[in-house]
Amino acid sequence: MRIGIIGGGSIGLLLGSYLCGQHEVTLYVRRDEQKKVLNDEGLFLSDRATPFSLRALLLDEIKEADCFIICVKQHHIENILPILKKMNRQTPLLFLQNGMGHLEHLQGIDNDLYVGIVEHGALRKSDNHVIHTGKGTIKIATYASDSEVLTSLVEQINQPAFPFEGALDWKELLTNKLIVNAVINPLTTLFDVPNKEILNNTYIYYLVEKLCYEAAMILNLDYRIQLEKVKEIAKQTGENISSMLTDIRMGRQTEIDAISGYLIENSNHETPYTTFVYNSVKALEVKKEIGQSDG
Amino acid sequence: MRIGIIGGGSIGLLLGSYLCGQHEVTLYVRRDEQKKVLNDEGLFLSDRATPFSLRALLLDEIKEADCFIICVKQHHIENILPILKKMNRQTPLLFLQNGMGHLEHLQGIDNDLYVGIVEHGALRKSDNHVIHTGKGTIKIATYASDSEVLTSLVEQINQPAFPFEGALDWKELLTNKLIVNAVINPLTTLFDVPNKEILNNTYIYYLVEKLCYEAAMILNLDYRIQLEKVKEIAKQTGENISSMLTDIRMGRQTEIDAISGYLIENSNHETPYTTFVYNSVKALEVKKEIGQSDG
Repeated sequence: MRIGIIGGGSIGLLLGSYLCGQHEVTLYVRRDEQKKVLNDEGLFLSDRATPFSLRALLLDEIKEADCFIICVKQHHIENILPILKKMNRQTPLLFLQNGMGHLEHLQGIDNDLYVGIVEHGALRKSDNHVIHTGKGTIKIATYASDSEVLTSLVEQINQPAFPFEGALDWKELLTNKLIVNAVINPLTTLFDVPNKEILNNTYIYYLVEKLCYEAAMILNLDYRIQLEKVKEIAKQTGENISSMLTDIRMGRQTEIDAISGYLIENSNHETPYTTFVYNSVKALEVKKEIGQSDG
Repeated sequence: MRIGIIGGGSIGLLLGSYLCGQHEVTLYVRRDEQKKVLNDEGLFLSDRATPFSLRALLLDEIKEADCFIICVKQHHIENILPILKKMNRQTPLLFLQNGMGHLEHLQGIDNDLYVGIVEHGALRKSDNHVIHTGKGTIKIATYASDSEVLTSLVEQINQPAFPFEGALDWKELLTNKLIVNAVINPLTTLFDVPNKEILNNTYIYYLVEKLCYEAAMILNLDYRIQLEKVKEIAKQTGENISSMLTDIRMGRQTEIDAISGYLIENSNHETPYTTFVYNSVKALEVKKEIGQSDG
């Protein structure tokens, strides 16, 4: 399949390196510098000595493909929409953003739309080197299309070393991920700790319960079930540094608007704990002098 | 006057260095090591080359005095009560703790009782060296006694370089200080910033208003007036590192129980923002492996 991966961050690079063996992958990036190094040196995965070779192009050089996988962060979705709208309407688009705020932007697009969640850990070491820090699955659901197409899409891109799975309900898929992100990400960021510490430190764990409760209320989910999921994932990914904490440490804008910000906007009640972490992570961005448009 | 200062922390050392020129000061400390260095080398203030000489004794060597000034932190008050109860009932006792939780412990003491707030900044560099980081006033009010005695006490210990002032209403004095501490201390600690940043960083300032509002409600104070006071003090002490942040940086137990903990215990309503900072500072203590009995 000809696959266009949009975004040269950690997730874009991770998908590129696993998919390019079986597909004709083009990676679309924003900076000429990254395009050049990917084309000249190839793409390095973890501690593998040989690079993968794939084609890298700039976003405005976009070409037709059989499928596009959009891996930019949610706060960059708006920038790439004009490009996506120029594409063939038959081409399926798969969106892998955290949160749910990007869904409103998809209204004007007539293509088959899929949304998915990434359960991998990945860290971009450089413009052409990504570390696969935690193996997981990419789960995909149909957002606007016909689910039989989803099955065939999943079959085509799935591979044992890098599994894709279909899910029936896009809303359930995204809300479950959102609630996990809304608890683990801001707390690990605020206290500068690996994921497991939010369970081990009883005072942080007190805040885990409060945040999970607020998020479950907003998303109409069962608090007890969601809390168990949050605990399970924090335990499974115990040694990991969350993506939000990584962003703060690297001086990059976080996804707090797409996560806690989305919850606050969609709540009919007071959400003081979510509001506290929202302002805290924003405060850390200001402290680190992180502007609104990062690299 | 023979003045007994109880506690060899930053405030005890600061008072010792300013009062020992005009009074016969005995400084009571907990550790033999500190007693020894104070007696052998004297007490150094800021960058003054010559030390002050005063007598240092251990707490269980306590001797009669004309007045005791109790400068231990609130969570150590209980430990020194048995010693205070052995003193002459005619000796006035002046308590300079943050918060209000210590007041309940004073019920069984028949001496004239005074409470005060310290508006100085002070940092203990070593067991016999204190830095006066911010000049201010010590304000004293009668807690259980006759206010004419307060006036004479203030007159005796006041000096232009280190002013003492009498205040009419102990409750007003302590609640005003408590509200300032409940806002500035935890926020500067959580975000690891000097005092002014809680005004300059708009996202932290959002939390300033929320915390001030909750504290004003609990203490039955006017929110607007208290917010102005908090802002004024954060501005005046802008470059200072708060005592709570200093404690966390030094790996010492903080006064969060006496400050936010006291407010939570004395509230009839939900106090989510205060509860958040309370758990956050406790979480930082756990992260820094700070136990319940610090040095």
